[in-house]
Amino acid sequence: MREIFDAELRQVGEDLAEMSRLVESAITRAGKALLEADLELAQEVIASDKTIDQIEASLDERCVHILAQQAPVATDLRVVVSALRMSASLERMGDLARHVAQVARGRYPARAIVPAAEETFARMSEAAIRVAQRTTTLLTTRDLEVAAAIERDDDLLDELHAETFNKLLAPEWDGTVQEAIDITLVGRYYERFGDHGVSVAKRVTFLVTGDFAEDHLS
Amino acid sequence: MREIFDAELRQVGEDLAEMSRLVESAITRAGKALLEADLELAQEVIASDKTIDQIEASLDERCVHILAQQAPVATDLRVVVSALRMSASLERMGDLARHVAQVARGRYPARAIVPAAEETFARMSEAAIRVAQRTTTLLTTRDLEVAAAIERDDDLLDELHAETFNKLLAPEWDGTVQEAIDITLVGRYYERFGDHGVSVAKRVTFLVTGDFAEDHLS
Repeated sequence: MREIFDAELRQVGEDLAEMSRLVESAITRAGKALLEADLELAQEVIASDKTIDQIEASLDERCVHILAQQAPVATDLRVVVSALRMSASLERMGDLARHVAQVARGRYPARAIVPAAEETFARMSEAAIRVAQRTTTLLTTRDLEVAAAIERDDDLLDELHAETFNKLLAPEWDGTVQEAIDITLVGRYYERFGDHGVSVAKRVTFLVTGDFAEDHLS
Repeated sequence: MREIFDAELRQVGEDLAEMSRLVESAITRAGKALLEADLELAQEVIASDKTIDQIEASLDERCVHILAQQAPVATDLRVVVSALRMSASLERMGDLARHVAQVARGRYPARAIVPAAEETFARMSEAAIRVAQRTTTLLTTRDLEVAAAIERDDDLLDELHAETFNKLLAPEWDGTVQEAIDITLVGRYYERFGDHGVSVAKRVTFLVTGDFAEDHLS
């Protein structure tokens, strides 16, 4: 039994890491599509989100199967329940990358982000890519310093999100309403992306330390 | 064992219904706070979101406890795993009601929603309230006609969401950038609120029929 259980659990871990790698690829390409008005990349991101959804579905089925067949307790049970939660976060991160790509596609051949906000979004894109890369690293190494780095990048994303509003509300803002809508939505997508990365980071931290922070964790 | 299990499961069901009732109250008051610039109501919604989070946390612990102590299989297991998922959706619906209230509070004493978009948001508020009310009814009765009604109100929310962009992009739009930002964000919050209602509706439908729709379900 234990051998089967360990093999199943390993597969769950591999599925989570695979989802995270796909999210990393999606958010990287979505940022490039957004900032360079690259239609092909945008369409790739949109099309590939289905794969993330499929891995989530099979991972969730595997977790339910493990619960039914192995009736894990204590730490093992926490691992399985956490995997269910983390797969939901990763799936949502994939959706958010897709939403960024959809904005890029919707404005093509124009750029969705006006020059005045380009640098802010370039930095948001970089921070989000780091969150995704570190999420993959964290899931494969369980190194808690990586979890802390994810939280720092999430703080940076929050700051940059606030900066997007400052740009929009500055007296020198002279963009169109469509440009203001796009900045508002894409900023929100990046901000949420960071939140989900933190949610995964907190769940891994809990699994390693057994100590669950009081913060919101869904 | 079975008696304890049934009692535990009943408590999980009651906690979900209680979360849903609190969400219903929050989204009702948030809509009123938004449309009438009612600061007190907005603050109530913001403060009461903690209660929803607390019920979620205790419900989740109860589910993990049930899994550990009772090792349920088949339908019982699906009920517990679904409860974990539904509590996450309901918690998120509470967050979204809070976000609406935060916009209302941020603009007070002004109204966040300009007169040109008032009717659209009044209809969004009504549709979201119905989604929440029906979610409570669905959780307590498992009447699948109610699930279908939730999906219809979600479709309506999507339509009204599209309408908010039409208002913003119409030639006669003459609002400020702040007003455009608020409409964009609040519209998005209501749209996501509907999505989470549908997610709960689909999970209950699955539990009743055993037939899981292919759609995205996190």
